[in-house]
Amino acid sequence: MKKKITLKQIAKELDVSISTVSKSLRNSPEIGEETRLKVQAFAKFYHYKPNNIALSLKNRKTKTIGIIIPEIVHHFFSTVINGVEQIANENGYSVVICLSDDSFDKEVLNMELLANGSIDGFIMSLSKETQFKGDFHHITEVINQGMPVVMFDRVTNEVLCDKVIIDDKQAAYEAVQTLIDKGRKKIALVTTVDYVSVGKLRTDGYVKALLDNNLPFDEHLIIKIEDVDTCEIIIGKLLEEEAIDAVFAVNEIFAVTCIKTANKLGLNVPKDLAVIAFTDGMISKYSTPTITTVSQSGIKMGNRAAKIIIDRLESEDESEDENYTTEVIETFLVERESTA
Amino acid sequence: MKKKITLKQIAKELDVSISTVSKSLRNSPEIGEETRLKVQAFAKFYHYKPNNIALSLKNRKTKTIGIIIPEIVHHFFSTVINGVEQIANENGYSVVICLSDDSFDKEVLNMELLANGSIDGFIMSLSKETQFKGDFHHITEVINQGMPVVMFDRVTNEVLCDKVIIDDKQAAYEAVQTLIDKGRKKIALVTTVDYVSVGKLRTDGYVKALLDNNLPFDEHLIIKIEDVDTCEIIIGKLLEEEAIDAVFAVNEIFAVTCIKTANKLGLNVPKDLAVIAFTDGMISKYSTPTITTVSQSGIKMGNRAAKIIIDRLESEDESEDENYTTEVIETFLVERESTA
Repeated sequence: MKKKITLKQIAKELDVSISTVSKSLRNSPEIGEETRLKVQAFAKFYHYKPNNIALSLKNRKTKTIGIIIPEIVHHFFSTVINGVEQIANENGYSVVICLSDDSFDKEVLNMELLANGSIDGFIMSLSKETQFKGDFHHITEVINQGMPVVMFDRVTNEVLCDKVIIDDKQAAYEAVQTLIDKGRKKIALVTTVDYVSVGKLRTDGYVKALLDNNLPFDEHLIIKIEDVDTCEIIIGKLLEEEAIDAVFAVNEIFAVTCIKTANKLGLNVPKDLAVIAFTDGMISKYSTPTITTVSQSGIKMGNRAAKIIIDRLESEDESEDENYTTEVIETFLVERESTA
Repeated sequence: MKKKITLKQIAKELDVSISTVSKSLRNSPEIGEETRLKVQAFAKFYHYKPNNIALSLKNRKTKTIGIIIPEIVHHFFSTVINGVEQIANENGYSVVICLSDDSFDKEVLNMELLANGSIDGFIMSLSKETQFKGDFHHITEVINQGMPVVMFDRVTNEVLCDKVIIDDKQAAYEAVQTLIDKGRKKIALVTTVDYVSVGKLRTDGYVKALLDNNLPFDEHLIIKIEDVDTCEIIIGKLLEEEAIDAVFAVNEIFAVTCIKTANKLGLNVPKDLAVIAFTDGMISKYSTPTITTVSQSGIKMGNRAAKIIIDRLESEDESEDENYTTEVIETFLVERESTA
């Protein structure tokens, strides 16, 4: 018996991208005819079986939810998974998890793997690379075949489906407003590069809070860090060159690095420098001083995503199909020593 | 078409445990005849399909590895997963993850879910409850049907399979020896309850290091913490009542709590109290002072577990089947400020 061929193997054999294979197999006009026919012929010869979700869905339920997340060494994503597990288990569902490792290709392959009869629906957060490329065909394909998808946190407007998000702009606004209320006037933003949707929204919230309070906006105070290993040097430079009195950091590691670097330079946190971080994880709770954070409510986000997908899976009413919701989970500030 | 019935549903309908259903279906003599026949009749009526792994293995490879871990908000397990992913992806394998949530029933259900044709083999770490019950029939069943299992970290001698471990006893011994070499004489052990295999081994290493150095062994200095929320109170009591000069903690949270509690009591770390933790995670790296740790080499452990299972899956030589290895990964001490 011939081994089953995968999308990845077809891509490798024909020296094209996984995305090209995937699009060719569903006759996408984006792919030139020659390539499309070549891929289809190859797939047919090797008996490649595309997902036949619609068919399998009619006949059976796996009572399993698939989660695809970008990374696992990340407290926020771990807590979302716990939130999904809670509600899923209460309702008799199992959960399987795949990691995209922030890679577009891995996201496509994992969706192919799970959609192939193992699960009833997806809960997912987009990989950085998928957001950067703006290619979501693998997700719309799954939805078009009748399998529900709920996106959380890193979502896109280009796919119509249920979404669970926090209002990143508003949350950032409130964090910066808190710093301003405490008398801080020169507030830096330590963030990542912009192609992750949430990064851009948090920057917008930061800028809006400054302008609403008639504080000058200085783009030198927005520090974009791509590689976490360079974070200490870049933050050190910021603290030496600019007389800032507060930092809003988009994650815990940037925040704790600010604190440690400030201490080395003889600055006291919170007296000389107040710090607020996005994401309420373990580092903030156990750092010295402890760090004030914007809690993203990962458990609640997971709970809601699971509830939405289960309701959709168990609803008999097919007319609801297009009635997608975007649920906004409230964030809240966990005040700790770094802003006391 | 009748919906497929699961082990869990059978257990619920007949008001018996999942384990009883699972054992009845494979004719285990541990289960009384009446129950056994009842379960079998029920399963037959509902066309329950047990895993038919041996058959599916002969016909196809999924090129997918299943991982089952006790919890996900845990830096060590996350790094092991990353280690497995690295080697798996290099070799064209996908990875799916399920969480047992430290529950025996969830472990059994997840193994049933994945073994049912989705994966070629398991990499797993036992749930606390499984270790406590000492019931491993779900694992031996999978192995007997021809599916390879590699256990890591939390393993058992009662199942014959490949294992990847660290020498927990030796690692604990070396950590305590390091404290003794630095002149510490009254060293406390802050640990969990003993039914997790690694907890017991670490205690053994602690005791052996004391005795080998002719230091008195005082069981009041072994603090067992079951609920992390009580950790601060228990450690505070220890520090107030006993004039200890060092702590060996089996995880980062216990270690950082020791440091914070010591600070509150006016003790300086490392001057008055040296601290070493097991598990090299984010908290140790970003705590103030930073914490000296025993690195469990999670990435390396994941790498090795993946290599072993892939070699086994791709080996044509069936005579190797019983030739199980237990690979011991070397730990190393990451010296930081808490022992300086």
